[in-house]
Amino acid sequence: MITGVLLDLSGVIYVGDEPLPGALDAVALLRSRALPIRFLTNTTRTPKRRILQKLQDMGLSCAEDELFTPARAARDFLTSHKLSPHLLIHPELTEDFDDLPCHDSKAVVVGDAGEAFSYQNLNAAFRQLTAGAEFLALASNRTFMDKDGELSLDAGAFVAALEYGTQKTAKVLGKPSPDFFKAALSSMRCPTKSAIMIGDDAEADVSGAIAAGIGVGLLVRTGKYTTGAESKVDPAPTAIVDDLKAAVEWLVEQQLIV
Amino acid sequence: MITGVLLDLSGVIYVGDEPLPGALDAVALLRSRALPIRFLTNTTRTPKRRILQKLQDMGLSCAEDELFTPARAARDFLTSHKLSPHLLIHPELTEDFDDLPCHDSKAVVVGDAGEAFSYQNLNAAFRQLTAGAEFLALASNRTFMDKDGELSLDAGAFVAALEYGTQKTAKVLGKPSPDFFKAALSSMRCPTKSAIMIGDDAEADVSGAIAAGIGVGLLVRTGKYTTGAESKVDPAPTAIVDDLKAAVEWLVEQQLIV
Repeated sequence: MITGVLLDLSGVIYVGDEPLPGALDAVALLRSRALPIRFLTNTTRTPKRRILQKLQDMGLSCAEDELFTPARAARDFLTSHKLSPHLLIHPELTEDFDDLPCHDSKAVVVGDAGEAFSYQNLNAAFRQLTAGAEFLALASNRTFMDKDGELSLDAGAFVAALEYGTQKTAKVLGKPSPDFFKAALSSMRCPTKSAIMIGDDAEADVSGAIAAGIGVGLLVRTGKYTTGAESKVDPAPTAIVDDLKAAVEWLVEQQLIV
Repeated sequence: MITGVLLDLSGVIYVGDEPLPGALDAVALLRSRALPIRFLTNTTRTPKRRILQKLQDMGLSCAEDELFTPARAARDFLTSHKLSPHLLIHPELTEDFDDLPCHDSKAVVVGDAGEAFSYQNLNAAFRQLTAGAEFLALASNRTFMDKDGELSLDAGAFVAALEYGTQKTAKVLGKPSPDFFKAALSSMRCPTKSAIMIGDDAEADVSGAIAAGIGVGLLVRTGKYTTGAESKVDPAPTAIVDDLKAAVEWLVEQQLIV
């Protein structure tokens, strides 16, 4: 039996500002079975506040504790390790790091900073790292589809630059980091084995979750899914279904939820 | 017998704007034995014209053909492969790429661009590379000692960023690239085995030269040399001597030059 559900957002619940057909009903069905849910997104350009607002505008109520972002994982790490952040992130995201207590020890936090990836900012981060700061990366993506419809350099490239310069390895938060999946599961006291992850990214969502020990990983054919994506990943998805609605139907058929 | 000499510049011939004691006499002695010489520098911020001027101001006459810089190696590569450059280099260095013929095919050339390493410029280079441009790196250094006396990020970090984003590997010009040593030797028709390299960088100058097949690699204790640097490299230097003057004396003692 499944005792907890992890859901990706973009490409599973919505695309752009529109919910995917049947997605909200599927979430409602999971909630009606009293299954705890956590929403896991790798976005590093949008603060938590705006993601929650967007979900609410779509008619999906989501408590703050149900939403897991790399920024939240970073904030939790900073708090538990008593570190002050040196931020190299998108200006829109800085509010997620407001009001942290001051500490002497620092951690460099690298996200998708966009235009803020200047030589000066990268070199300042480099110097903090060589002076002993911890090294946190909100993501390790190589590229993203930019507004003009072409691929652009994503945060991972700048993490790689700092790793090369410092000869240190960043701790990557967000999917597919096992720590990220486990923090979400731990927040709902769900054992890894009896959890399910549903996502449209064969690698970061599904294969990553199964590699982290999650019992079931379902790949949906919505969002960024492209035909054959499942054949490029190891471990493979537990199953591939059309969309989130079909994913919940699959769980019922398999008698994994009652 | 030695039939050709490769000399590093900074730290071997001069430090800053001052020739090292005995260095000019040592070069004169090599010239008096009719030994062909090539000067190999990894600088990617100073154009060839200014390096030649600097040497002349110090009293060392050096023909244009005797000076090998990564920019020259890149220019030769562009010419022989019929490529137009997309430059991501220091503004001071652009003159070394003036007046190249136009070609449809391109090569991205990454040097130590300093402040010109903006997100926009890096992303433009990234897009050229994903569109099929060749990928040339003038250097792969991680860090350099900046004007303020602290280490700063060097070109290698930005090459690493582009390599991570594109999943392509740059062709690194300059020392310790075997192609760079071999181009210099080929220009004086000197077989690799009967050549000597003298430098103050145990890794890039000396170990790199020996790894490239050069018969003798001498490490001098001037410039950036630090005690024990020779023990960190494999292959090890053929010998370690105090300075360039001592290097030439060593060659005479070993009867490698007459």
